[in-house]
Amino acid sequence: MLTLDKVFDAQSVLKNIIRETSLVRAYGIAPECELYLKPENLQITGSFKIRGSAYKISLLSDEEKAKGVVACSAGNHAQGVALAATKSGIKSLICLPDTAPISKIEATKSFGADVCLVKGCYDDAHQKALQLKESEGYTFIHPFDDEDVIAGQGTIALEVLNELENIDAIVVPVGGGGLISGIAFAAKQIKPSVKIYGVQVAGAASMFNSVRDCKIECLQHVHTIADGIAVKKPGENTFKYVNEYVDELALVTDDEVSSAILGLIEKQKMIAEGAGAASVAAVMFDKFPLKGKRVVCIVSGGNIDVTSLSRVIERGLFKSGRSSSLLIELIDKPGQLKDISKIIADNGANVTGVHYEKGNTESVNGCFLRIEIETRDYEHIQTITDALRNEGFKIF
Amino acid sequence: MLTLDKVFDAQSVLKNIIRETSLVRAYGIAPECELYLKPENLQITGSFKIRGSAYKISLLSDEEKAKGVVACSAGNHAQGVALAATKSGIKSLICLPDTAPISKIEATKSFGADVCLVKGCYDDAHQKALQLKESEGYTFIHPFDDEDVIAGQGTIALEVLNELENIDAIVVPVGGGGLISGIAFAAKQIKPSVKIYGVQVAGAASMFNSVRDCKIECLQHVHTIADGIAVKKPGENTFKYVNEYVDELALVTDDEVSSAILGLIEKQKMIAEGAGAASVAAVMFDKFPLKGKRVVCIVSGGNIDVTSLSRVIERGLFKSGRSSSLLIELIDKPGQLKDISKIIADNGANVTGVHYEKGNTESVNGCFLRIEIETRDYEHIQTITDALRNEGFKIF
Repeated sequence: MLTLDKVFDAQSVLKNIIRETSLVRAYGIAPECELYLKPENLQITGSFKIRGSAYKISLLSDEEKAKGVVACSAGNHAQGVALAATKSGIKSLICLPDTAPISKIEATKSFGADVCLVKGCYDDAHQKALQLKESEGYTFIHPFDDEDVIAGQGTIALEVLNELENIDAIVVPVGGGGLISGIAFAAKQIKPSVKIYGVQVAGAASMFNSVRDCKIECLQHVHTIADGIAVKKPGENTFKYVNEYVDELALVTDDEVSSAILGLIEKQKMIAEGAGAASVAAVMFDKFPLKGKRVVCIVSGGNIDVTSLSRVIERGLFKSGRSSSLLIELIDKPGQLKDISKIIADNGANVTGVHYEKGNTESVNGCFLRIEIETRDYEHIQTITDALRNEGFKIF
Repeated sequence: MLTLDKVFDAQSVLKNIIRETSLVRAYGIAPECELYLKPENLQITGSFKIRGSAYKISLLSDEEKAKGVVACSAGNHAQGVALAATKSGIKSLICLPDTAPISKIEATKSFGADVCLVKGCYDDAHQKALQLKESEGYTFIHPFDDEDVIAGQGTIALEVLNELENIDAIVVPVGGGGLISGIAFAAKQIKPSVKIYGVQVAGAASMFNSVRDCKIECLQHVHTIADGIAVKKPGENTFKYVNEYVDELALVTDDEVSSAILGLIEKQKMIAEGAGAASVAAVMFDKFPLKGKRVVCIVSGGNIDVTSLSRVIERGLFKSGRSSSLLIELIDKPGQLKDISKIIADNGANVTGVHYEKGNTESVNGCFLRIEIETRDYEHIQTITDALRNEGFKIF
């Protein structure tokens, strides 16, 4: 059973295992409130997950420890279990679908786990893990629906409330619900006035839907850049704790999450993964009544691969008017590219790509020019398109 | 004159102005040494520059304070002076060339400075600042060649040596030389055994060349992604201190700096600008004898604009085999794109771009297909090109 004593016990167990991340005052991201970040992206393994796994493992009997643990995950939970087991000197086996990215497999191995690749999808790997638990006597470490794991995640609330006084609200990303269950449970015992807000992404709203409909629901599929919280079905324990202790849940879109990732890069020089930035996105886009409040956002993790990061930045630049792609009709006349280049250069934009495209132009010999430019903002784009139109160019 | 007392005095003055950044243990970036980062990218204003400016301003007389300060910079120094002046309740004027990016102008204004845009280049803005100093009685705050400014930067050494014992070496990015002068001076007084290593980029090797040739030299031009240390000429004070207290200087390339930026993102979830990552690049690429040593890298700043960041990531992905661009000759036969797509998909790579290009193919009706793919590493690229060649495709 989950008790506040258990969360304090977890804190003392974790003392020499985890990093006690310090709150960071964030200026400029959400000027209307006094915002602090709890940077669990800077936690060892790059996410909070090690807290729950390490505490769970510490409670195993010597016999259980001798047999080792098994888990199923392609992400932060795998790395948390792997390192927690290694630090306790016990064996860990992580089941992964064979479609998992090499980089994740390598990261899991690098923390000392054995990896078992299972043909199929996540659910197949999960079945395999449960089967190995039965046949080999391994202890299965659930990513969220386990009260020991939840107690471990709850240590975040102890650190936050100890470091900063008069907190009005804590905003927490929600996947399976282990993190918010632990934080909400501990925070509400210590300081009942603090509001606990949970954030899911619109493409994986399992807890949100379940709470709204007052019963656990399972999504058919999930689709989001926040893969760390892409969970189809809440846990029974976590559903209960969220209902009891969480004040409100809200949804953010993938675009809002991308903006939050970009904001954290630009204002805080910090990398968050989609799941980690979801809480910040909710504050940036006013999902909760936080005006004038002292708010702590849990930035739960930072394990985003750079390919995704590169796409998020590109999308963010596009969305904020700092890059643009113009489609211009060219008529059959020499010097058109020269004229267009001059107008763009005179207006201080930087050309990053040029492509000719055939298409249904007015003139048989015409074509389209797709030109990619770096710009300052939407106004700058407008100035450039106006200048091009003034010179007679058709822009689509 | 620079004394250790002065550096300690600077530390007490700065106590309520700056953030005392804590060392971060960095795993996985340079496994052969015990590496710590001093994250001045997380300093307020995003770089260490506020230390020197704020200390300099604190020493001004009431009369000087009443008149205000002037500086010339398009980057970190501008923001440091602006915020330091604002925090001391005095006026600051920053001269910038009118070609400076809007974003930098806005950032400088946001810290409370007045901005004076000067027609021309950096040198013109510099002349204007000196002229305003004469005509208006403003105090000119030099970005590096001033012993009060140097004392302010030296406070970093006090913090580092106070936080961590038995440091073997401190690695410092070098532009004009203010940062390394302060750090080397203070560190060598307190702990003479500590090695101080300086890093410049190959495209702006002014201090490196000057020290090698035993006289101050001025570069004709500088070219690097590390704009924060793109300085044409060392200062007289800084040249003297570097000669006296720095053990060794080395150069890194822009590609090495890009790899360091990428490494800091992936392993530390941290954004550094080119200048800030130069020290880390030197350690990653073995520029100094650091094997088995306890090393502190000064990550001097994090003010990189996201457009550049996006390019650095792209280049880093390309350089590490995680993206690739294949040019394939297509002959005049249906189904070629289908066949190629299938081979790529079967090998687990992700297509991110496709372009047809005309060119000098063997067949009159042939053309080239440029296909951009996301890959795992060089081996993966090799597997895919081998598979394509086995099916008879010509790759260039």
